[in-house]
Amino acid sequence: MSLIVQKYGGTSVGSVERIESVAQRVMGWREQGHQVVVVVSAMSGETNRLMALAQDIQEQPVPRELDVLLSTGEQVTIALLSMALEKRGCAARSYTGHQVHIRTDSVHNKARIVDIDDKRIHKDLAQGRVVVVAGFQGMDETGNITTLGRGGSDTSAVALAAALKADECQIYTDVDGVYTTDPRVVPEARRLDHVTYEEMLEMASLGAKVLQIRSVEFASKYGVPLRVLSSFEDTGEDAGCTVAGTLISAEDAEMEQALISGIAFNRDEAKVTMLGVPDQPGVAHKILGPIADNNIEVDMIIQNIAEDATTDFTFTVHRNDYDKSLAIMQETAKKLGAREVTGDTKIVKVSIVGVGMRSHAGIASTMFETLATEGVNIRMISTSEIKISVVVDEKYLELSVRALHEAFGLDQSA
Amino acid sequence: MSLIVQKYGGTSVGSVERIESVAQRVMGWREQGHQVVVVVSAMSGETNRLMALAQDIQEQPVPRELDVLLSTGEQVTIALLSMALEKRGCAARSYTGHQVHIRTDSVHNKARIVDIDDKRIHKDLAQGRVVVVAGFQGMDETGNITTLGRGGSDTSAVALAAALKADECQIYTDVDGVYTTDPRVVPEARRLDHVTYEEMLEMASLGAKVLQIRSVEFASKYGVPLRVLSSFEDTGEDAGCTVAGTLISAEDAEMEQALISGIAFNRDEAKVTMLGVPDQPGVAHKILGPIADNNIEVDMIIQNIAEDATTDFTFTVHRNDYDKSLAIMQETAKKLGAREVTGDTKIVKVSIVGVGMRSHAGIASTMFETLATEGVNIRMISTSEIKISVVVDEKYLELSVRALHEAFGLDQSA
Repeated sequence: MSLIVQKYGGTSVGSVERIESVAQRVMGWREQGHQVVVVVSAMSGETNRLMALAQDIQEQPVPRELDVLLSTGEQVTIALLSMALEKRGCAARSYTGHQVHIRTDSVHNKARIVDIDDKRIHKDLAQGRVVVVAGFQGMDETGNITTLGRGGSDTSAVALAAALKADECQIYTDVDGVYTTDPRVVPEARRLDHVTYEEMLEMASLGAKVLQIRSVEFASKYGVPLRVLSSFEDTGEDAGCTVAGTLISAEDAEMEQALISGIAFNRDEAKVTMLGVPDQPGVAHKILGPIADNNIEVDMIIQNIAEDATTDFTFTVHRNDYDKSLAIMQETAKKLGAREVTGDTKIVKVSIVGVGMRSHAGIASTMFETLATEGVNIRMISTSEIKISVVVDEKYLELSVRALHEAFGLDQSA
Repeated sequence: MSLIVQKYGGTSVGSVERIESVAQRVMGWREQGHQVVVVVSAMSGETNRLMALAQDIQEQPVPRELDVLLSTGEQVTIALLSMALEKRGCAARSYTGHQVHIRTDSVHNKARIVDIDDKRIHKDLAQGRVVVVAGFQGMDETGNITTLGRGGSDTSAVALAAALKADECQIYTDVDGVYTTDPRVVPEARRLDHVTYEEMLEMASLGAKVLQIRSVEFASKYGVPLRVLSSFEDTGEDAGCTVAGTLISAEDAEMEQALISGIAFNRDEAKVTMLGVPDQPGVAHKILGPIADNNIEVDMIIQNIAEDATTDFTFTVHRNDYDKSLAIMQETAKKLGAREVTGDTKIVKVSIVGVGMRSHAGIASTMFETLATEGVNIRMISTSEIKISVVVDEKYLELSVRALHEAFGLDQSA
């Protein structure tokens, strides 16, 4: 018997029928003797409906009151799911974030969880009940209702799993796990049985949007095993008690690691370059300072010294920030006496991720060789301990991803 | 400066526009220097929408979870009203029943308030804030969400007014006060400036549905002055700070009481008679016992001894219970050896109400004489200290009410 925390997102509880189906799945786990805590989001569409009501009154609603408003979305779901469980003869109790004291800081609309009172939940579990908790919400020290921001239900689930010392935190979503790469680009993409927290964090930050980054950080910090599963798979005769999906946990020394776990990519970036900047101490700060002052987030940064004592400086930003960044850079170029500012929005970032590359040399050269063989010109390179990213022309995206997927043997079963 | 508790019902907050208008009205009171606590219901239609979702899952939803679900309705309104106030530069704070500890018993769906923690509200008021509280809801001793049942927001407002020792509790609704009788029946009906709790209780129980009976009982018990006002009246230049409507308070010895305050009537009753019941001790219990066992509520009861040592026994029930009552009575009649059971659904109850009748003789005879003059046959009579009710044929309803309204001078200004 284990203690499982399950989280179901908005589309998984998007209608009464879907809620009934979630109840059926939860029952399957109960019948196998597990203790189950369920965390749910608002029914899909509900948060947008409430937001529209608020914005009819205030373009920028008062943050405290917006939290009071939006938190009703999850409260509706917990009540309906508990009814669906009770109807099936499965004892259940719903709780708002306030009721189980999900204590957060006071930053309305994007609060952070600081503490959870697990006593009440443990008592219900001991009495054989399924406990259904509203995700996304909490309360601050003085009892004000807070919300964790969009997608915060993943974080609620992981925080509850940590507080309850659960054996596993299962995130049910509309995909059945984490893949070696996007199956729409590479049909041979395989679902990974296991990735480490670090790999998942790199993949999430590189654009693979299966889980909220914060929830993975939280799981890593408290060592909560996370599993991504589909809530849309036919549960058939087994009443839905399956354990496939992808397990995300700490690196296991005894397990032989694959060199590379996955290929991530990101089409949302654009690149800006300042050419012929007179090289002098502090030039990087002078270039990036005005960008940061405008709240533009910079991803990759590369600086090369040219032979004529000038330097070329390149960085990438989100495509939405491209025009603004270019204008700022042109101003800065004048001040610094730089030669020229250029830019490109038709680029993509392709990354290989894997904890295995820590202990294996030659990964980078395999990557560069593979791309060279395919005639793909690399524009920028950036590396971290478990990731190598390259920026290439947009038109080479599919070619690059497929070639790398094959070169690192990701299409073969582990 | 006084402390005012205001309550706005579902139609008064039925749209964003109506909520803006409530905010405008509250502002008017604030600008005159009053402290204001506002209690709101769910936006009209919202409770029914939530109920339909629940019943898609369970015909009889689990009471505890139904409360979790329905209580979101008021929570949406408190957030939106607070935003509308803040937008106008009026500091406001919303609170759920849970947050201001509106403690109730644990009878889900029809809980009773036992205690309210007034500290938090007084603190906000002292800081110049308007406090907006969700009506209809509370929490039990162990923190479960409870609701007071439909119309319970009136009771929330009165309970808050009592706990806060407010100067007045104002109930805003879609009528502008309590009338001498229904203006649809008697166009000359006048709005009463003042009625006593007892009169209001009699009128409410006789079918004048302006206020929930429980809220009037509560106000009477704690001596909270209640005022019924319209939230639909044009507030014009004064930004809505008017004090018309009808004040409901304790009897004032110095104030000369009108003999009769109003004429109430009820079209929902039906009458059942058992004729020729052999008269013996306990016969009333033998007749009414089976009716009570079937959870049928009985209103008026009359028993007459006939000359042949039998008795005739008549009572009234709600028309919805008429067929069932008749069937039960026919069974009982067989057992008791009664002659016959008859009944009539085409009856109405007409009542005159007034604390003045306590100290004035002749009220009853004026009533009976008036009806006799109009040729109205009285079928049943029942009296209390401040009320006389008669049952007449349905077709005489308008005639009776108009004649009595004129006979007691209710169409003349007080």
